[in-house]
Amino acid sequence: MTYRTDHATDLDSTRIGDTVSVAGWVSRRRDHGGVAFIDVRDASGIVQVVADPASIPVVEDLRMEYCVSITGAVRERPEGTVNEELATGEIEIHADEVVVLSPSKTLPFMLDDRTEIEERTRLRYRYLDLRRPRMAENLRARSRVTATIRRTLDGMGFLEVETPTLIRSTPEGARDMLVPSRLRQGDFYALPQSPQLFKQLLMIGGVERYFQIARCYRDEDFRSDRQLEFTQLDLEGSFWTQAEVLDTVETVLKTAATEIRGGEMTEPFLRVTWQEAMDRFGSDKPDIRFGMEIVVLDDVFADTEFGVFSGALTSGGTVRGINAGPRELSRAQADVLVERAKELGAKGLVWMQVTDDGSLRSSVAKFLSYDEKTGLVSRLEAEPGHVLLIAADRWQTVSAVLGGLRLDLGRPQGHDDLAFLWVTDFPMFEVEDDGSRTFSHHPFTSPALIEDMVADPDTALSQAYDAVLNGVELGSGSIRIHDPAVQRQVFEVLGIDAETAERRFGWFLDALDYGTPPHGGFAFGIDRLAMVLQGEESIRDVIPFPKTQTGVDPMTEAPAEVDDTQLTELGIRLRPEVIAARAEDTETGEVSRGDV
Amino acid sequence: MTYRTDHATDLDSTRIGDTVSVAGWVSRRRDHGGVAFIDVRDASGIVQVVADPASIPVVEDLRMEYCVSITGAVRERPEGTVNEELATGEIEIHADEVVVLSPSKTLPFMLDDRTEIEERTRLRYRYLDLRRPRMAENLRARSRVTATIRRTLDGMGFLEVETPTLIRSTPEGARDMLVPSRLRQGDFYALPQSPQLFKQLLMIGGVERYFQIARCYRDEDFRSDRQLEFTQLDLEGSFWTQAEVLDTVETVLKTAATEIRGGEMTEPFLRVTWQEAMDRFGSDKPDIRFGMEIVVLDDVFADTEFGVFSGALTSGGTVRGINAGPRELSRAQADVLVERAKELGAKGLVWMQVTDDGSLRSSVAKFLSYDEKTGLVSRLEAEPGHVLLIAADRWQTVSAVLGGLRLDLGRPQGHDDLAFLWVTDFPMFEVEDDGSRTFSHHPFTSPALIEDMVADPDTALSQAYDAVLNGVELGSGSIRIHDPAVQRQVFEVLGIDAETAERRFGWFLDALDYGTPPHGGFAFGIDRLAMVLQGEESIRDVIPFPKTQTGVDPMTEAPAEVDDTQLTELGIRLRPEVIAARAEDTETGEVSRGDV
Repeated sequence: MTYRTDHATDLDSTRIGDTVSVAGWVSRRRDHGGVAFIDVRDASGIVQVVADPASIPVVEDLRMEYCVSITGAVRERPEGTVNEELATGEIEIHADEVVVLSPSKTLPFMLDDRTEIEERTRLRYRYLDLRRPRMAENLRARSRVTATIRRTLDGMGFLEVETPTLIRSTPEGARDMLVPSRLRQGDFYALPQSPQLFKQLLMIGGVERYFQIARCYRDEDFRSDRQLEFTQLDLEGSFWTQAEVLDTVETVLKTAATEIRGGEMTEPFLRVTWQEAMDRFGSDKPDIRFGMEIVVLDDVFADTEFGVFSGALTSGGTVRGINAGPRELSRAQADVLVERAKELGAKGLVWMQVTDDGSLRSSVAKFLSYDEKTGLVSRLEAEPGHVLLIAADRWQTVSAVLGGLRLDLGRPQGHDDLAFLWVTDFPMFEVEDDGSRTFSHHPFTSPALIEDMVADPDTALSQAYDAVLNGVELGSGSIRIHDPAVQRQVFEVLGIDAETAERRFGWFLDALDYGTPPHGGFAFGIDRLAMVLQGEESIRDVIPFPKTQTGVDPMTEAPAEVDDTQLTELGIRLRPEVIAARAEDTETGEVSRGDV
Repeated sequence: MTYRTDHATDLDSTRIGDTVSVAGWVSRRRDHGGVAFIDVRDASGIVQVVADPASIPVVEDLRMEYCVSITGAVRERPEGTVNEELATGEIEIHADEVVVLSPSKTLPFMLDDRTEIEERTRLRYRYLDLRRPRMAENLRARSRVTATIRRTLDGMGFLEVETPTLIRSTPEGARDMLVPSRLRQGDFYALPQSPQLFKQLLMIGGVERYFQIARCYRDEDFRSDRQLEFTQLDLEGSFWTQAEVLDTVETVLKTAATEIRGGEMTEPFLRVTWQEAMDRFGSDKPDIRFGMEIVVLDDVFADTEFGVFSGALTSGGTVRGINAGPRELSRAQADVLVERAKELGAKGLVWMQVTDDGSLRSSVAKFLSYDEKTGLVSRLEAEPGHVLLIAADRWQTVSAVLGGLRLDLGRPQGHDDLAFLWVTDFPMFEVEDDGSRTFSHHPFTSPALIEDMVADPDTALSQAYDAVLNGVELGSGSIRIHDPAVQRQVFEVLGIDAETAERRFGWFLDALDYGTPPHGGFAFGIDRLAMVLQGEESIRDVIPFPKTQTGVDPMTEAPAEVDDTQLTELGIRLRPEVIAARAEDTETGEVSRGDV
């Protein structure tokens, strides 16, 4: 049988008089004057069908989301019934034949975009959720994003190369997900956190321009914008410089953004160093859609008698502030800001509001000199009604506090505008809470200058860079180390002794010994990019079948128990305490499966 | 620094006089008259550099596969030294500056395509193996194949949608690979054997045309052409018929083949039913690049007194033969054929050779009547020198035996020609060796007629189809079941009772209840397609980083041991006998890691 001759939106007034078949779902049904008016929805859109139950009895049965094939003549709609909002709004199909391809049970929720549905329910019935116009559009947009990215890179001479996903465990800052080997019981594959080492091997192998839209895996404790599996555009090239990498990625991002948002993006992305990003925005992933930049006030308060400021300055700290613009600031609202500053790591926060006469309303105003107050107003370009927030502490703390408040107070809702930027010159290492040193990017990132790294690792810069969109970190990259001696030095600074380095990375250090070209690359998250371009707040809305925060699929109930025989074949068993806990759950009737 | 201004093959006689920089690897070096002639290879090809060690001392150091950047003037080659085989054969670069970007240790093997290297060594140094021209070409070809497939489907309105790879275990005929969950200890994800159920859910979700180039996983005991992970083009559509699926996939395959092989493919693929494929070629994946088709001889021997034939016929079997064409057939060669027939399941094999005078040389000729012999010669179109092979047994056995011999005797080496075909109308079920019934394709395949399936499952046909190229099964597909009642009936025929069906597939049966459109699709292996198009004999030669037959990567030595703490976090531990075996290996100094 032929289910359809045309898609819904193929039909318009040029087709009047044609007999056509459409196939899709009953998205709405009204009965009027003994006749049924049925909106049939397919992947293209909606067309209205007029059917007379008297001559086609099955019409009586049609309910929401029945899957149907309908044949009839295209007619002009009667005057006054034209629907301007529909592409097919000038016509309707007068049904001669209605075939129910599949009935539908009563829906668990309405499929329009207006109904708010609990996310767990949406995921439980994801196949219905995907019929909603917004979700259907998200799927289409994501497909267009990846197709555009591929077309762009293909046109630039990049090869798409698939790297393995059953690999040896590598240390990239998050836990590996493991896959037990059946043929070598006791051994495990790891799922890749990224194709990092394999793309570097491709460079050694002479593939000069590589990309892949790659599935990656991180077994992290979930944050709101993370999934166990995610997708990244991964690219790498040889014989190019950081500037060339950035230009290439910038072109790719612009093409993707233009594909979804239209228009043209002629301006180059802003490029700031990590130091500048922290100083101006208090963040290494600044949202630059608004100002409210951080201003240094050290010189204004150089001789202050106000103890909080002078204490910070004499102990090597800094005094900085932001102008949060005109806004109400009751005592209660000020208290909320102070609380938030403490959450962000501050010991306190100085707030002020410029009154109509230009004086400063603040609990600390009395401690400041006339010069300090005028200096402050002038430096922060403060005008009557403006709220000023000032922090005094170590540089790191001041940046974190003012950066956080800036976002709270200034960040636009949604993603109507797109503001991309590059952050470059990241530090080579970070010091962890326990005082140990770790890599900022990953251990294969090239230092800016090897001499600087050896002299003072903790202030040394790297050739690492991030791409940021509307305050969302899209991804990061770096120029890699291509000299095995430098790679060994970096391991050493990281406290990985020679023997351990050899055991864990010997095969890779070997590879570097065979004429490794200078190379570098980048990776950005497709999920995050699609999320922002589609104006969504959660990556789960641009992933066809995402997991919940605890890694569960409420539809299939994955992960699930497996038979003991399967585990035995893999040479593994559950730990006794896990078996005991499960037995107890079963006894007490607690279904832990459902907890999310 | 700028590593290069031009790729090697950008340079030709139009560039004479230009000062250029090239970057790549020293692929050959000869010294002649005190001057070094260096072939520099980059991803585009090779260019010759002339360098004088007297003025550029570093030239003395250059060895094979050193990575270099060289700057100099493009000059015409002296008369008599033009190399017609090189794109850049009319010119050479006279080096002014030579920079060694990375030295190389002595290579473990030569990188030309002429050297035969043990595969394990190639995989151990895959990054060097990939520099060989043939492997580099395979990577490029594979990238072009996938780019072409995507472009074609994109142009047809298909959406590329990513389905999850951490899923619930599904039964598709091979073992699942498992991933222990950390957040839900005792539960496991499975890696997908295919996106089958998710693509069906996308159809239910209203995505009418879906594709994905998807990574899939099967934990099978390795055969020569299998890997634990492989890549397939997966596609599915709603509201279309089998003929439309086949036409679409055929277009995709033709476009991919044309991209690699050039030319034009105007002829439609041959389409045969499974029954016809078995009857004519003795195989459900026939290689139709040569004839040697199986011929039914039942009527010729209907009244024979030769016991082997009459026995087969009276017990419901069949007598069939192939004309293996003109060839030598010594007694020893005939014995080899008989042996091979027995391996293929036959009790014996009748062989004959037509002598110059038209009579038949065979140990059984004396048992055959004149009419039988002339009938045989005529039916098999036998001429002097031809060898005829005849089997008499159950239909299945005869088909397997003659199909196998046909391939042994007739199959062309390599893949110079491409012969695609479709095999349709597969049986719905197969009977396993233990007498149990299993699905031929998968349990979601639609029967041709539900009434036939209920009446006699073992003869019922399905709406399943395979694509075959040069005797290699590229992939398979089917029209799926969209009626939950039919799906339940199929489970029942498969011996899956209602309760088990509900437990294992309840969520999917639920989904079918919400207006599921009629749908069907296909999947084919990208590895196999690329292998045949590139004329390779092993899929490992078109996979960038394959595993060995036992699932080992000799380069990284994956899979590997992991720390107990990692396993504890996952709620699992090794079985005691595995721990004991490992301890013993360590004691005896046996390094089981290296066994492949």
